[in-house]
Amino acid sequence: MNIVQVIGIEEFPIVKKGDSLAELICNMAKKQGTSVQDGDVIVVTHVVVSRVEGKIVNLDEVVPSEFAKNIAAQYEKDPALVEVVLQEAKRIVRMDEGKIITETKHGFVCANSGVDKSNVPGERVVALLPDDPDGSAEKIRREIKRLTGYDVAVIVSDTHGRPLREGEINVAVGVAGIKPIRDRRGEKDFFGYVLRVKQTAVADELSSSAELVIGQADEGIPVAIIRGYNYPKSENAKATELIRPKEKDLFL
Amino acid sequence: MNIVQVIGIEEFPIVKKGDSLAELICNMAKKQGTSVQDGDVIVVTHVVVSRVEGKIVNLDEVVPSEFAKNIAAQYEKDPALVEVVLQEAKRIVRMDEGKIITETKHGFVCANSGVDKSNVPGERVVALLPDDPDGSAEKIRREIKRLTGYDVAVIVSDTHGRPLREGEINVAVGVAGIKPIRDRRGEKDFFGYVLRVKQTAVADELSSSAELVIGQADEGIPVAIIRGYNYPKSENAKATELIRPKEKDLFL
Repeated sequence: MNIVQVIGIEEFPIVKKGDSLAELICNMAKKQGTSVQDGDVIVVTHVVVSRVEGKIVNLDEVVPSEFAKNIAAQYEKDPALVEVVLQEAKRIVRMDEGKIITETKHGFVCANSGVDKSNVPGERVVALLPDDPDGSAEKIRREIKRLTGYDVAVIVSDTHGRPLREGEINVAVGVAGIKPIRDRRGEKDFFGYVLRVKQTAVADELSSSAELVIGQADEGIPVAIIRGYNYPKSENAKATELIRPKEKDLFL
Repeated sequence: MNIVQVIGIEEFPIVKKGDSLAELICNMAKKQGTSVQDGDVIVVTHVVVSRVEGKIVNLDEVVPSEFAKNIAAQYEKDPALVEVVLQEAKRIVRMDEGKIITETKHGFVCANSGVDKSNVPGERVVALLPDDPDGSAEKIRREIKRLTGYDVAVIVSDTHGRPLREGEINVAVGVAGIKPIRDRRGEKDFFGYVLRVKQTAVADELSSSAELVIGQADEGIPVAIIRGYNYPKSENAKATELIRPKEKDLFL
């Protein structure tokens, strides 16, 4: 039978700077009776990655600029939060309806430069995106290989809003060991016809699948193992392959 | 353990107008040793729904307008296909880079009015979107209830491109029994803070999860059962709740 399992890693501890996520993932998986296996896809929410990398900011220590204060007053936001969002932005893409959509230094277009308010202890602490989410994913992957001998794929995910559709979905901001897009052009569909255009954003679909367990538990699940999915392997793929170049985007 | 299973229904027959998808789903699931269960989410790709509803068009029987011919010549497309796309469109939203992005009569903004070339026998046959995808989902749900006594959720899915990001993902175009958006505002995150904004497009995430099995098999899998996901129930939700009103969209 064709079954893919999405397994939530429960009772994950609150991580601090310098912790090894690979060790925690392997140990916590073992503890709940399901060791990491060869060919697993491991989806990690970016907030825990940011925390072990020290990419968190105490808003009480931020001095907002006049521009940040002005925007914050108009949008009924925290001036210190707006300041952090602006500092993390390469440019502002849209600013309306109480939303600040920016392009991050990585090239992602998302709300608030990916700065995340929730899931970090301390009401006034926020998590930034990792500096190099692909590198963060690769580090976890390499460590898991060292600890277990197994080849896995690792995805660092974030929750994004999107144009056209309401509601947020989980998408990939970092990848290691997996091509983020499965190019199916040239493959035959199930009646034997050649598919004309079919490039599936599998890293985003895997991230969204992970949220079925990540978003489900009240106590919070920051890591999911996806087992049974035959992912397209790659040694050097980048999540930025998921970003459409501005000049090719009909909505920018 | 917190596990969600995504089960592909294999060896699904080629359906024809008038077939009962509910019966086929129940029978094929039983045949592969996993009967439909209470609380399952059943994701059905729109093409099989369109086929049982007779929403297919033979391109050889279409007479393209001069406008369709003109566009087809510029974009190197089939004039008959362009004609069908235009007939299915309420308006053209973007037309560039060889892409025709329209708003369908349902309100979905997508490429080619959701007209699908693949997965239908006959090189010159295309599948339109169902007239009322929520109604299609509700019909399958009601029939499954009648056949098994079980309450399930049904999602009719389609593969959409999207602004900002490359690659296509599977999203919901019809729902029954499930709220497409889980409103988590007011819920606490795992450090006890109240989430400010968190509306998760669960019907889209479930559709994307289904594609992990739908897209995986060479022989094609048009239906997936998602088991173990505690979905937000609703008797009257509509997939159009996933469509952001134009006046609220910063990219339209």
